[in-house]
Amino acid sequence: MTRVEQIQAALADAGADAAVFRLPENVMLATGWWVQIGGQGLAFVPREGDATLIIPEYEAHEAPRWWQGDVRTFPAIRFDGPLPATEIPRILGELADEHRVRGGKIGFEGSYESVAPAQIDGEPNAVAAPTMSLLRDVFQSDALVDLTAALEPLKARKTDSDIERLRITNEIACIGLDAFKEHSLPGHTEAEIAAAVGAAIVARGHGYKGTRVVRAYPTVWSGPETATGWQYFRSRDRKVEQDDVVMLELGTVADGYWADHTRTVVAGKATDRQREAMAAVFAAQEAAFAAARPGATGGEVDAASRAACAQAGFDQFPHHTGHGVGFRYHETMPWITKGSEQTLEPNMTIVTEPGVYEEGLGGFRWEDNAVVTDDGAVRLAETDYGLD
Amino acid sequence: MTRVEQIQAALADAGADAAVFRLPENVMLATGWWVQIGGQGLAFVPREGDATLIIPEYEAHEAPRWWQGDVRTFPAIRFDGPLPATEIPRILGELADEHRVRGGKIGFEGSYESVAPAQIDGEPNAVAAPTMSLLRDVFQSDALVDLTAALEPLKARKTDSDIERLRITNEIACIGLDAFKEHSLPGHTEAEIAAAVGAAIVARGHGYKGTRVVRAYPTVWSGPETATGWQYFRSRDRKVEQDDVVMLELGTVADGYWADHTRTVVAGKATDRQREAMAAVFAAQEAAFAAARPGATGGEVDAASRAACAQAGFDQFPHHTGHGVGFRYHETMPWITKGSEQTLEPNMTIVTEPGVYEEGLGGFRWEDNAVVTDDGAVRLAETDYGLD
Repeated sequence: MTRVEQIQAALADAGADAAVFRLPENVMLATGWWVQIGGQGLAFVPREGDATLIIPEYEAHEAPRWWQGDVRTFPAIRFDGPLPATEIPRILGELADEHRVRGGKIGFEGSYESVAPAQIDGEPNAVAAPTMSLLRDVFQSDALVDLTAALEPLKARKTDSDIERLRITNEIACIGLDAFKEHSLPGHTEAEIAAAVGAAIVARGHGYKGTRVVRAYPTVWSGPETATGWQYFRSRDRKVEQDDVVMLELGTVADGYWADHTRTVVAGKATDRQREAMAAVFAAQEAAFAAARPGATGGEVDAASRAACAQAGFDQFPHHTGHGVGFRYHETMPWITKGSEQTLEPNMTIVTEPGVYEEGLGGFRWEDNAVVTDDGAVRLAETDYGLD
Repeated sequence: MTRVEQIQAALADAGADAAVFRLPENVMLATGWWVQIGGQGLAFVPREGDATLIIPEYEAHEAPRWWQGDVRTFPAIRFDGPLPATEIPRILGELADEHRVRGGKIGFEGSYESVAPAQIDGEPNAVAAPTMSLLRDVFQSDALVDLTAALEPLKARKTDSDIERLRITNEIACIGLDAFKEHSLPGHTEAEIAAAVGAAIVARGHGYKGTRVVRAYPTVWSGPETATGWQYFRSRDRKVEQDDVVMLELGTVADGYWADHTRTVVAGKATDRQREAMAAVFAAQEAAFAAARPGATGGEVDAASRAACAQAGFDQFPHHTGHGVGFRYHETMPWITKGSEQTLEPNMTIVTEPGVYEEGLGGFRWEDNAVVTDDGAVRLAETDYGLD
């Protein structure tokens, strides 16, 4: 089934006659097009028939690379003609008539409170009362159907094409992970290291295997405080000192496909006990990936990770062991936490990120992205370095 | 009036008994604290009495630098105790009881579809059905009051403290603007120039005059295609050639305060006509800032800008001439467009960004941030270079 057919099946299940998506991650799901200006890119999916991508007219020549279906356009940015505020409703009205869904049940994105940003990530968009009013007005219907719960499982199950695009994102992320290793030197500030990681990804990711637009979200933490690295840390102007532990948290997106990584290195020489802690984390990650087979629950993968860490003599910290990834930095399925009953399926993409944090020793976390196969989860890309 | 008192007056006007904010820009407005993890930082403002900031417990030691009022905390990230999903409702319930607002009318952020991201900008948060359900459950009330229209005017009118913080953001942005000038050289790709701008801001912005967290959003466009630079452009792997026009669009945020800039330079020597186009843009910007006095409408400022550009012999492109800025990249007030009747007031912060785009010549836009005073709008920071 194509993505549109999957969404159409979900519409049938939900009793909806059509859906309108306005969040970049769901426009991606339906059409493969990564919205440039949040809110100014929509997908319309009727229960039967052709789906439509609705975008600014100046993007129309680029969209066919990812979406070969129907495209309708409107003028954007300029104020010398009809505005998006009138053109988007007009186009949706056309589609409502063509697909005879006025007065029907209209699916929408009602419960998204964590969202993936569009390309213009400094000003993300959301779906709230204005879009709900728009849909009610255009479709002459009070029957809006929240499709959030129906869309999340579709996103969790990647197609082969999704996986190839995610592999590219992971390869681009590795450019940043290598820059992290290279720049994690005594005398550099955390902020300088983060800047180098972000710059490497932006400078070399654009155009990488045809990639159009890349964004990077790196954060670096260092020194004794890495023992609190289970928290979401921030980059400071603290200078890394000789033999400091340095941690990187990195989100990367390439043409709408996301990766989530962590690396930990020592700026100099690690102690034996630090190496043992890192080895415990690696053992936990291997055990988690090995357990991540179709049919396993998130809870079972979590348990395998924690058991391996304990066997290596360390306590794996009680943050999550992993999660789904791809259409967003953190997807809602599968959740790899203690007791999670969500079941892994072939072609799901997950991360595992076991961590050990100990006062006086530091924090040690490592995170990779992998695809679930019958042989366990297989990494989408790898770096070739370790703790020091 | 303090910000909390302003919000309380807005609550009285709206007939609301209390408000709960969950969007970073409104938590900023109420408390000055820039949320780290979107959704995991809230502000509670009762119609009378003390407001409360609700954040993860590990952030509590940092918040008092910006917010000296009541703080309540919950465990976050870790799964070995109570979770945010139960603790946030519990804390809100405590506050509902203390302020006796159960069953009352509760203000919320109902119509925000463009939002400012939290520090973790790779995964922004929104307010949708889940938060509405939370508020209905906790406050035992179906009377949710959308405060969007009441909050926007408060954000538009900056306090002196806001302006000082915005000045710092603008100074940090200038680090990036200078890097843009320095790196706009033949042989560099657009993506490499954008990477250098972002890296300069991240590396040198953290710690600048005490700044805690900085993010940058640069995009670079170059060559003959800058004639289409009125569109939202993207950075490519295109190499800048000798004498190319190069344009930068840049968002910068420092501790939750936003700036919006554009620069245009020539990588070599501009032609006379290119200098004339740039001079027309500068004249338009000067005229707009001179007209931006208390009492002027956005439409009048727009008209002054276009008249100056025309007098210099060029057509100012019909995208907006400017907009408010500060708590978000683009604020909704004042809108500086043709016919805008929104009135400027002292201490509003605005940008103007007139542009001239001509096939065969290129695109020329320049954008600065300024504060409205009785003498016109005064730039918050400046660079010392021009087109070439």
